[in-house]
Amino acid sequence: MKLLEERILRDAVVKAGGVLKVDSFLNHQIDIPLVWELAREWKRRFADVPVSKILTVEASGVPLATIVASEFGVPLVFAKKTKSINLSGTVYVAEVKSYTLDKPSQVIVEKRFISPDDHVLLIDDLLSNGCAINGLLQICERAGAQVEGIGIAIEKGFQPGGEELRARGYRVESLAVVDEMNPDTGDITFRE
Amino acid sequence: MKLLEERILRDAVVKAGGVLKVDSFLNHQIDIPLVWELAREWKRRFADVPVSKILTVEASGVPLATIVASEFGVPLVFAKKTKSINLSGTVYVAEVKSYTLDKPSQVIVEKRFISPDDHVLLIDDLLSNGCAINGLLQICERAGAQVEGIGIAIEKGFQPGGEELRARGYRVESLAVVDEMNPDTGDITFRE
Repeated sequence: MKLLEERILRDAVVKAGGVLKVDSFLNHQIDIPLVWELAREWKRRFADVPVSKILTVEASGVPLATIVASEFGVPLVFAKKTKSINLSGTVYVAEVKSYTLDKPSQVIVEKRFISPDDHVLLIDDLLSNGCAINGLLQICERAGAQVEGIGIAIEKGFQPGGEELRARGYRVESLAVVDEMNPDTGDITFRE
Repeated sequence: MKLLEERILRDAVVKAGGVLKVDSFLNHQIDIPLVWELAREWKRRFADVPVSKILTVEASGVPLATIVASEFGVPLVFAKKTKSINLSGTVYVAEVKSYTLDKPSQVIVEKRFISPDDHVLLIDDLLSNGCAINGLLQICERAGAQVEGIGIAIEKGFQPGGEELRARGYRVESLAVVDEMNPDTGDITFRE
C-alpha cells in the first residue's frame, strides 16, 4: 500500500537488531486518518469473507484494531497480557514469546468472547516472528472459531513469521512488507 | 449519560472488593457503536476548549481513546506500561500504583509526543483511585502541556479519585458515576 510505504519512508527509524520504529504514527502516537485508510484497505481486501469479530492483543495493535472493527461494523476483542483481578477463571491462555520484550508472556481471552460461531479477523501493527499472532491463533483454535484472515500493517519480510503463516494456509494481508532495512544508512526496501 | 447507565445495569457485573466488570462491552470486548456515542458526548461536553491531543494509558482505555481521537480529529498518544526495546532514552516516566494489579508500575511517554504546545484531553475507561490518571498528569506537567480536561467512562464515586482531581481544579467529565454497588444483590446506584 503506497500511502503506508511513503509514510514509513518519511517517518520510520531503522535501528540495529531488526527494529523498525514507527511510534510517531502507528503504535505510540497514532495518526488516526492514516489508520482509517489502512482499515478501508483491509475492508476491500477481505470483502469476500464474513467477519464477525476483530481480534488483537494489547497494546500496540489496539488503536488499529479499534478502527478496523468500526470499519467492519463488528465488535473488537483484545487479548490481555496480564491476568488482572478483573479476569474471571474461564479464560483461554496461550504462551507467547515476545520479540521486543525479553521474557515470555501470555495472551489471555475470556472464553465467552470467542465462540464457534465467530469468523475472526486478526489485526496487528507489526509481524516479525509471528509470536503474538500464533498465540491468538491458538486461542481461536481452542474456541473453535473460524480465522478468516490476518491483517498486518507492516510485515518484516526478512523474518519468518509471515512466510510460516502463509505456509500453514492462513491468508495474511500485510499492507507493507519490508524486505530489507539498513540501520547504518536508514535505507528500507519494500517487497513489490 | 443514560445510554451508558442502562448498559451498565444490563451487562456489568458487581464483584466483591469494589470491582465492576464491564469487560463485555467496554474493556475486553468492545461495543464500538456504544464507544462512538461516548466519544460524541465528550465532544459536546468539551466543545468549549481546544484539544490538540488525546492521551491515555495502555491497555484498557485505548479503544475508547482511539475513537475519541477520531471524533476530535486529533492524534492519540497512549502511555506504555513496559519499557520495550523500541522506546528510546528520552522518555517521561511516572510511577503509579494499580488498583487491579498487585504491583506498582510505570507509565512512559516519549518526550517528543507531548509538548508545551499541546492541549491534552485525558481519556480512560474507569476511575477509581486515580492512579493511572495521576501518572498521566505528572507527565503532562513535566512536558509543560495544558490539560484541558479528563474524560472518564465510569467513575467509582465511592472511591476518592474523582473527588481529588476536582479538588485540584481539573475538569472531570465522567459519563456515569457509580455511588454504590452491592456484590451480593448486584444493585448499582448512579449519582444524579
